[in-house]
Amino acid sequence: MSEPDDKLTLGVVLFEEFELLDVFGPIEVFGILRDQISIVMLGPVAGPVASAQGPSAVAEVAYSDAPQCDIVLVPGGHGTRALALEPAFLNWLRTWASSATYISSVCTGSGLLAAAGLLDGFQATSNKRSFAWASSQGTSVRWIPEARWVEDGNRWTSAGVAAGIDMALALIGKIVGPDVADDLADRVEYDWHRDPSWDPFAAKAGLVSQEKSEAR
Amino acid sequence: MSEPDDKLTLGVVLFEEFELLDVFGPIEVFGILRDQISIVMLGPVAGPVASAQGPSAVAEVAYSDAPQCDIVLVPGGHGTRALALEPAFLNWLRTWASSATYISSVCTGSGLLAAAGLLDGFQATSNKRSFAWASSQGTSVRWIPEARWVEDGNRWTSAGVAAGIDMALALIGKIVGPDVADDLADRVEYDWHRDPSWDPFAAKAGLVSQEKSEAR
Repeated sequence: MSEPDDKLTLGVVLFEEFELLDVFGPIEVFGILRDQISIVMLGPVAGPVASAQGPSAVAEVAYSDAPQCDIVLVPGGHGTRALALEPAFLNWLRTWASSATYISSVCTGSGLLAAAGLLDGFQATSNKRSFAWASSQGTSVRWIPEARWVEDGNRWTSAGVAAGIDMALALIGKIVGPDVADDLADRVEYDWHRDPSWDPFAAKAGLVSQEKSEAR
Repeated sequence: MSEPDDKLTLGVVLFEEFELLDVFGPIEVFGILRDQISIVMLGPVAGPVASAQGPSAVAEVAYSDAPQCDIVLVPGGHGTRALALEPAFLNWLRTWASSATYISSVCTGSGLLAAAGLLDGFQATSNKRSFAWASSQGTSVRWIPEARWVEDGNRWTSAGVAAGIDMALALIGKIVGPDVADDLADRVEYDWHRDPSWDPFAAKAGLVSQEKSEAR
């Protein structure tokens, strides 16, 4: 559902100990498109939310007041471990996110989507060093260890932290247009990996053998 | 000057319309080293500071109460244009930053350092699409158009936005150790460009010829 002014709405789920770059990498590029995309920062309550690194971002709206959004973005970070055990949060996330046009996550955010049942029957990826935890959150998910990001239907899940920028640019390419995504990558001087199968970090984390990875 | 607990202190200068990734790219990697580095977010006053993209971060301390810091980080963003015309801000920045062990900037943040006189006699770089503006802020600076980042003495200036992550990792490599920086890059799954002369965006922005750039 778009806002009355026809902008797309991106809802970002903040929580205590979220990973900074999981949020602000994607938001950097979505946010440059302010004429086309409205960003809504959500938190347990409205107000400051402390990141895993310490600095706080501001949640404008409490989960309980979240508007319906076109795009949902769930970051990872240390805080996912506690949240994945909170039925009230997972119920809210499942209900709120399921009406979105695109449901996306960065890093261990896919563990939260999985715990909420939002990845059942889908392919997905996650942070490479925390893959065991994330993949344990959803047994009906086809977890892909070697991928920069995975697009399956309207589910978009990225690998760890910086991979969220690559996924966000690909999603912008799909929604807004490939030329816009290319220009955004140049504008923020980001070496965008456009191939979702590019992933040297899976082998480095021991998820696939180095030989298999290099043979791709 | 270190804190009593011997952590290094990183002071980040927030201002209205700062560029999100200029701040949160470097802070992502510095912030993982929480046992060794304390981050202090500074603003015109303590409280929320709106980014160029919209979402706000929280300044813990007002400029006027800023502690002496070991590392200074000045981001870029649209807000630099107005700040470069504010003598009170520039005087504060010059006085506060000049005692730091390392003075760093991301993107058009080097325009603010230059306007404050902090780059006089130094080499520096900046955002490639805003190079004309940044370089006009300091005529006694040797501006380097083609560089991912420039280290000159204790001044570290990076190219646009994402380049701040490469510079931050290099600075961490120098201060904390190269193995730590390598591990951080893998941990955040970032394709770190370790060569400060790697810069395809200078030619794309027309600052150097494509042929000259490719001949490097």
